Amino acid sequence: MSKPRPISGFPEWTPAQTLVEQAFLRRIVAVYESYGYTPLDTPAVERVDVLASKGVVDKELYVLDRLREESRGNKKNDLGLRFDLTIPLARYVALHYADLNFPFKRYQVGKVWRGERPQEGRFREFYQADIDVIAENELPLHFDAEMPRVILEIFRRQGLTPRIRLNNRKLLPALYRKVGVDEEKLADILREADKLDKIGPERLRESFIELGITETQADSCLQLAATNGDFAAIRSRLNELALSSPEIDAGLSELETVATDLSDLPKEMWTCDLGIVRGLDYYTGTIYETVLTDHPQLGSICSGGRYDDLASGFINKTLPGVGISIGVSRIISHLFKLGAIGLERHCPTDVLVILPEDSRRADCNQIATLLRDKGINTEIYHLPQSMKRQLRYADRKGIPNVLFPHRYTPEEQMIEVKNLSTSDQVELPINEWIKGYLTNG
Amino acid sequence: MSKPRPISGFPEWTPAQTLVEQAFLRRIVAVYESYGYTPLDTPAVERVDVLASKGVVDKELYVLDRLREESRGNKKNDLGLRFDLTIPLARYVALHYADLNFPFKRYQVGKVWRGERPQEGRFREFYQADIDVIAENELPLHFDAEMPRVILEIFRRQGLTPRIRLNNRKLLPALYRKVGVDEEKLADILREADKLDKIGPERLRESFIELGITETQADSCLQLAATNGDFAAIRSRLNELALSSPEIDAGLSELETVATDLSDLPKEMWTCDLGIVRGLDYYTGTIYETVLTDHPQLGSICSGGRYDDLASGFINKTLPGVGISIGVSRIISHLFKLGAIGLERHCPTDVLVILPEDSRRADCNQIATLLRDKGINTEIYHLPQSMKRQLRYADRKGIPNVLFPHRYTPEEQMIEVKNLSTSDQVELPINEWIKGYLTNG
Repeated sequence: MSKPRPISGFPEWTPAQTLVEQAFLRRIVAVYESYGYTPLDTPAVERVDVLASKGVVDKELYVLDRLREESRGNKKNDLGLRFDLTIPLARYVALHYADLNFPFKRYQVGKVWRGERPQEGRFREFYQADIDVIAENELPLHFDAEMPRVILEIFRRQGLTPRIRLNNRKLLPALYRKVGVDEEKLADILREADKLDKIGPERLRESFIELGITETQADSCLQLAATNGDFAAIRSRLNELALSSPEIDAGLSELETVATDLSDLPKEMWTCDLGIVRGLDYYTGTIYETVLTDHPQLGSICSGGRYDDLASGFINKTLPGVGISIGVSRIISHLFKLGAIGLERHCPTDVLVILPEDSRRADCNQIATLLRDKGINTEIYHLPQSMKRQLRYADRKGIPNVLFPHRYTPEEQMIEVKNLSTSDQVELPINEWIKGYLTNG
Repeated sequence: MSKPRPISGFPEWTPAQTLVEQAFLRRIVAVYESYGYTPLDTPAVERVDVLASKGVVDKELYVLDRLREESRGNKKNDLGLRFDLTIPLARYVALHYADLNFPFKRYQVGKVWRGERPQEGRFREFYQADIDVIAENELPLHFDAEMPRVILEIFRRQGLTPRIRLNNRKLLPALYRKVGVDEEKLADILREADKLDKIGPERLRESFIELGITETQADSCLQLAATNGDFAAIRSRLNELALSSPEIDAGLSELETVATDLSDLPKEMWTCDLGIVRGLDYYTGTIYETVLTDHPQLGSICSGGRYDDLASGFINKTLPGVGISIGVSRIISHLFKLGAIGLERHCPTDVLVILPEDSRRADCNQIATLLRDKGINTEIYHLPQSMKRQLRYADRKGIPNVLFPHRYTPEEQMIEVKNLSTSDQVELPINEWIKGYLTNG
């Protein structure tokens, strides 16, 4: 066969890009674990009836079949690839309910598959990185406040500046009812309201009117969708608009609890925003969206919310939860496209040990072992080729340090190390070099 | 729908088990990176013609199809799930050849899928953890010697005692030819020779004879399959048996280079063994198998070898390589079944911060932030419930430390911490506690 072609929608990175993506994923995992979320790793494969239980995505579903003609189309093993990490969580919690301790705080970082038409920033295979906390019967709202803390810390460590928008799905329909939207138009109006950022106020107002509400109602809806700020601002705006009802007060009270819990976070990092809706999702309380302030064109790269009952389709228990999901592949591919991430390093090697001649191999192995034991990633150049060639290898792979073992003996342990980016060169006992490296990098 | 059932062959662990598996995978990755291998993360999905290029496994292949009737059986997107990590590597190297720096040292840890009949220790979805190094035209044998070093270090860090068996696929047919096995019987004889451990010498001798060689030849074959020890022992045994030819000498010389390079490793960790064959694989030089000396019934849990040409089917370049693959899921599931791994911890949390009352929430958040910033995984119990209940939560989840913030103020920062396994309790400033914890665990 001839040279293979890439498969559209299934992204694959260069080694340098892969290092960046893996580092991103590891930082996410470190922060999730720092809050006590425990890893789950469910199979990529679920039963089709489980996957279809939410009913929305069958056109995107990949199902598994067998290659041999005689077993093709066999429905006995009706398995498919997961398209998110939430349905597997619901299925897992229902299946292992008796063995879990609640509140159950789990994270899962893994690929999901959707047979969509691939386009700019939309993939058929991509990483999601989710956290959820699931409780029995009741889940304190303070967990809703934990989500933004986790997310802000992750992006801070990535060197990105996120801004989280908070809203509440109890509040939202209550407000639109109060300004006079009929029950049967509510879902359509809310779906439109979500588009303010995309289409702007004039077109949104027109859309509202096309859906059959009055001009006055459309103006009120527009005011709602454009209401954002800190919690006090939201409340005073609703007071100005004279919008109050027991339903509204209930939603507002939830939003207040979450916002109060977050009051120590920098104001520019988050806001309450009545304009976010999370249209088709099954959220029933707090909802979140996150934009990167330097990359607004990406839209929300991290969304989620609270749901009253995670696994009602699978188990006769009330299991409320709250969770959030980071769209890793979309962020990463965008940053790659912009050239916004350094791709100097093509391997994780910190130090290349130069091999001066074959007889020095044992010394080089010893040096490498000393370094690796301290967590310093070390390669030996396995052939005693010219210095120039060995240095070129380090340079081409972006290895930051080369080590010359010429004066090394097992007794004296003197080494020379050159930093290839600064050209600094030092000569000192290996233990001293290690100490300095671990302190200063 | 009713309570979901597990899918046979698709393993799924409890949270405690998942923590163990993730720690295992991270140790593998740390050691792979410590030798400078760079991560790749190819899609789970490959074209079926790529997957079928080695021609052996189509009965095991999972292909992707779509759920909607009208697009079922559509051959346009003929995609399947990878069944190993070697074919994706070959395809990747061919596709990205121009962008890679050789020798290209990569690792990949990921799931693979095989539609086999599930049985004890054999899964349809399982983890492999591979390293390979690919060169252009020529690859020094010292890379063959690097593989056992990497593998031994991984299992040492896991607290397992591996024993690696080395052989050479040039040597093997040369020896069997020399004792008189016909060319057309060679493959069958070698395949049988691999079974010495399983079926014992008597039955192996019978099998040899059934394959049509003489009794004398069968005795010689049996002697070969039972030859193992250090390299000197192998060589003197072959001298005793008067087995020499240019082919044999070439294979023996390769084995000697690799064995000499490994001579600093403990003798009980590795051996040369003419009895291992790696039957159906495409190896052309060094081959490896690894057993865990405490779990011999698992057979080889880590195998691999050298191949002359990785990607000949995909690109017109000569790309020799050497690699090895750890069968993670099989090892882990075996250890779980034996109860050989502690499963006390159900989450990664190191410290649970007790919430005495709602008014102390800000202090608890501050304490948690201080700990998390130092890499200490910290949960806050989000409701001011009874102490008993908060301690029971920590106990049930296996959280090793609980922190009482009762005397904490932002100025004084005094905390009490109780270690739940030793019942030791200390009271001291948080910075001192952190320092002690990071030093002593």
